[in-house]
Amino acid sequence: MNSEQAYQNLLTHLKLTNALSQASGVLSWDQETMMPRDGAAARAEQSAALALVIHSRNIDPVIDELCGEIDESALDDTGKANVREARRTHQRAIRIPAELAGELARAGALAQGIWAKARREEKVADFLPTLKNMVSLKQQEAQCLKEEDGSLYDALLDEYEPGMKSEPLAKLLGRLRPHLTALREKLITDNVEIKPLKGNFEEGAQMEMARRLASVFNYNWNAGRLDLSVHPFSSGYRSDSRITTRVDRGNPFDCMYSTVHEVGHANYEQGREPEMDRTPAGGYASMGIHESQSRMLENQIGRSRVFMEWLHPQMKEVFGDFGIDSPDELFAIVNKVETGFIRTEADEIHYNLHVVLRFELELALFAGDLSVDDLEGAWNERFERDFGMAVDKPSNGLLQDVHWSFGAFGYFPTYSLGNIYAGELFKIMGDQIGGMEAMIAKGELGEISSWLGENIHRHGNVYSAPQLMEMVCGKVPDEKALAGYLQDKFG
Amino acid sequence: MNSEQAYQNLLTHLKLTNALSQASGVLSWDQETMMPRDGAAARAEQSAALALVIHSRNIDPVIDELCGEIDESALDDTGKANVREARRTHQRAIRIPAELAGELARAGALAQGIWAKARREEKVADFLPTLKNMVSLKQQEAQCLKEEDGSLYDALLDEYEPGMKSEPLAKLLGRLRPHLTALREKLITDNVEIKPLKGNFEEGAQMEMARRLASVFNYNWNAGRLDLSVHPFSSGYRSDSRITTRVDRGNPFDCMYSTVHEVGHANYEQGREPEMDRTPAGGYASMGIHESQSRMLENQIGRSRVFMEWLHPQMKEVFGDFGIDSPDELFAIVNKVETGFIRTEADEIHYNLHVVLRFELELALFAGDLSVDDLEGAWNERFERDFGMAVDKPSNGLLQDVHWSFGAFGYFPTYSLGNIYAGELFKIMGDQIGGMEAMIAKGELGEISSWLGENIHRHGNVYSAPQLMEMVCGKVPDEKALAGYLQDKFG
Repeated sequence: MNSEQAYQNLLTHLKLTNALSQASGVLSWDQETMMPRDGAAARAEQSAALALVIHSRNIDPVIDELCGEIDESALDDTGKANVREARRTHQRAIRIPAELAGELARAGALAQGIWAKARREEKVADFLPTLKNMVSLKQQEAQCLKEEDGSLYDALLDEYEPGMKSEPLAKLLGRLRPHLTALREKLITDNVEIKPLKGNFEEGAQMEMARRLASVFNYNWNAGRLDLSVHPFSSGYRSDSRITTRVDRGNPFDCMYSTVHEVGHANYEQGREPEMDRTPAGGYASMGIHESQSRMLENQIGRSRVFMEWLHPQMKEVFGDFGIDSPDELFAIVNKVETGFIRTEADEIHYNLHVVLRFELELALFAGDLSVDDLEGAWNERFERDFGMAVDKPSNGLLQDVHWSFGAFGYFPTYSLGNIYAGELFKIMGDQIGGMEAMIAKGELGEISSWLGENIHRHGNVYSAPQLMEMVCGKVPDEKALAGYLQDKFG
Repeated sequence: MNSEQAYQNLLTHLKLTNALSQASGVLSWDQETMMPRDGAAARAEQSAALALVIHSRNIDPVIDELCGEIDESALDDTGKANVREARRTHQRAIRIPAELAGELARAGALAQGIWAKARREEKVADFLPTLKNMVSLKQQEAQCLKEEDGSLYDALLDEYEPGMKSEPLAKLLGRLRPHLTALREKLITDNVEIKPLKGNFEEGAQMEMARRLASVFNYNWNAGRLDLSVHPFSSGYRSDSRITTRVDRGNPFDCMYSTVHEVGHANYEQGREPEMDRTPAGGYASMGIHESQSRMLENQIGRSRVFMEWLHPQMKEVFGDFGIDSPDELFAIVNKVETGFIRTEADEIHYNLHVVLRFELELALFAGDLSVDDLEGAWNERFERDFGMAVDKPSNGLLQDVHWSFGAFGYFPTYSLGNIYAGELFKIMGDQIGGMEAMIAKGELGEISSWLGENIHRHGNVYSAPQLMEMVCGKVPDEKALAGYLQDKFG
C-alpha cells in the first residue's frame, strides 16, 4: 500500500468511528431535551453499546499499521493533524486496560446519581467514598497515560487541553489572580443598587428574546435548533449544532446569557469547512478555545456597554416595560459584581477565582499533597480566604459542581483559559476590525463572526490551542489582555 | 460451555446489537421531527455506520456456534423464540452477499429522492429505471433468501410477516374482495351529505385533542411523547415509544385519527414486559399484528357509533361549536365512504381494495408475469376495474406510495392482514369483555387495553402471528369477522 492509499484508508476508518460518536452525541442531546422519563435505562444501554463499539474501533491495530505507512511529510497541515489525532486517540485507548476503562465508565455512570443525592441532602460524607474511588481510578488512568517524566495531573489535563501543562498554566493563573482580588475588593464595597425587574417574563417571551439573541450573534438556524434543558448546553457538529437554554421566570438574564454562551460554542462548530466533516482535524482545538468562543460572545460582547444600545430596546419590545429605563442601567445590572458561593452564577471577576480554587485543589490531590478526606476542609479554608465569607453548606461548597463525580479532573482550568484566550482574541480582533464598537451597538455582528470564522472556527483541530493562539495573536497568550479588559470595565 | 451459559452469551450478544438498533431508531425519529435542515447528510452517514456495525454483528459466526450449543428443549417459549429469531436474523444476514447488501442500501437511499421528484413532476418514465433496478436487486435478494421450494415473493413477504405465505394470503384476500366491492357499490350511490366544518382548528387546539385521544386510549406518556411530522409514524420500544401526527387546518380528523392509529402501534410496544427488553422475543410478531393494533383503535373503536358519545362533547370542548350537532352526524362524517385515488386517505371499504391491487401487482412482478415497463398500465387497468374511475395522473396512481422505491415489496398485504386480524380480535374481545360498548361510549378503555395487553402486547415476538392469532381466537383467522363488522357498520 502506498502512503496516499494508507492515508485514505485511515480516514475511512476514522470517519466511520466519528459518525458513531456523532450518533452518540445526538442520543445525549435527546436524553437532556426530549426523552420521556421511562427511557433512561434503555438510553444508558444504547450509549454504553456505542461506547463499546467506538472503543473497539479506537484500539484497532489497523490504525497503528496505517499510520506507519503514511509519509507525513507529504501531507498538508490538515493531513498531519488527522494522523496526529489518530495516533493520539489510539494511544490513549490502548494504554488503558479494558478492565480499568470499564470500571471508569461504571463508576462515572453511578457517581452522578450519588453526587446529586448527597448534594440535595447536604451530606458530604455520603459522597466521599465515591469520590475517593473516582480519584483512585483517575490516578490509575493517569498513570497509564502520563509521559515518562510528566505528572499525573498533566496526563488528565491533556484530555481537555492538549499541549498544555500544569506548570505554565499555574503560573498564568497565578499572575491573573492578584488582578481579580484587587478588583474584587474595590467593587464589593461600592455595591450597585439593583432596581426590581418587572415585565412579561413568560417562557414564550424569554424564548423569543433568546431567538433574537442567537440570530444577532449569527447562529445558523439551518444547522441547529434551540430547546430547553435543566442545564444549558451545546452539542453537535458543523451541520447540526444544537443549543439549549433554561427559563427562570424571575430572571430573564439567565435564559439570555445562557443562550449567547451556547451560541458561542455552536458557532465554533458550525464554522468548520464541510471537507473536514467527521475527521479528527474537523474537531475542536481544545476546551479552552471552545470556552473562549462562548465567553467572548457572552461577556466581552454580550455584556459590553455598547451592546446595551441594541439590547435595551429589544428587551423593551419583547418584555414590555421591564423596569430598566436606559442602556446604562442595563449595563450596570448585567455586570453587577457580587460575592457568591456558586461558580456558574458568578460575575466576570469572581468566576476565575472560583476556577483557580478548584484548580489548586486538583493539583494538590493528584500531587499527593491533599487527601479526599481533607478536601472539604481545604475547599472551605480557601473559599473564605479568597471570597471573604464562610461556606454555609456543602451544596454551596464542595458539592456544587458535577465535574468531579464523573472524573473530569483537569477540566476546570480550561474555563479560565477560555477567558484568557477570549481576552487576547477580543483585543486583537478589535485592533483588526475598524469601528467594532459601533457595529456592536447596532447589533451588526457580521464582521465579528467572519473574523472568528476565519481565524478560529475554520481551523478546527488542525492546530493545537497554543499554536492557534500564537498564529492569531502573534505571541504566546498571557493574562494581560483579560486583566486590562476587566480593569477597563470594572476598575 | 454448557447450554445455559451459551444461551446467556447469545443473549448478551443480541442485546448489544438490539441497543444499537434502538439507537438507530432514535436517530430516525429525530430526523423526521427535530433535525435541522442541514443535518441530513451527516445523519445518513450515522445511520449507515450503525447499519454496518449491526450487520457485522448479525453475521458474526459466534451466533451460529452459540445456537449450536444450546439445548432448546430446556428453554421456555421465550427462550425458544430468542434462539429462533437469532438464527433467522443471522441466516438472512449471511445469505445476502455484502456487495448485494451494499447495493440495496445505496439504491434504497437514492431511490426515495428520485421517486419524490418523479411524483412531484408526474413523470413515471423518470422513476422506471430506478424501479427496474430495485426490482432486480430484490429478485436477487429473494433468490438468496428463498426456501428451496418457495417462491421469490414469499421470501420477501417473510421479512414483514414471518410464517405467512402468498398462496393462503391471496386466497384470504380473494375471499374478502367481493364483500368490499359489494359494499362499495351499494354505498357510493347513497352519498352522505357532509356539512361544512367550522370552529377553531388551530394547531394548538388540534394537538390538545390529539393528547386527549392518546390519553383516552391509555397511551403511556411516561414512556413516549407526541410530536409533529410530515407523515405520522410511531417508533421506539417499550420504555420510549414515540408517536407523531400532523395538522391540516381544514380537517381536524386527519390529526385525530392519525394519533389514534399511532397510539395503537405505540401501545403494542409499551405493553412488553421489562424482562424482554432488547431481546428478539421482545420484538413484535409481525407487521400484520402491529397494524391490527393500530387499525382496531382507529376504526373498530375510534370510528364506532358508541365512541362518538365520548368524542362529540370532547370535540366541542376543544374546538368550540364545530358545525357538527350530534354524535350521529359525527359518526356519519368519520365513516363517509367515497371513491378516491389515494390509499392513505381511503375509508375502511376502499382501503383494502387499494391494498389488494398492490398485492396482485407485486405477485405478478415477482412471478415474472408482469414487467416493470407494463406496471403502470396494469395499475391503471385494475384501478378502473375496482374503483370505477380512471387514474388521472401518476401521483394518483403508480407513483402515490413510497414503499416500492426503497424495495418494500411484500409489505402492502400486511396492511390488509392487520385489518383482518383486527376484525378477529375485536370480535373475540367483545365476546370476552362484558358491556364493552358502554365502556367505549364513556371513554373508559381500561379493560380493552388490559385485554390487548394480556392477549397480544405482552407476548411480543414469542409466537409467530399465525400461532398468536390461533392462541387468542381458538381458530385460524379468516376474513369473516372483518366482513361481518363492515357489513354491520356499512351494510
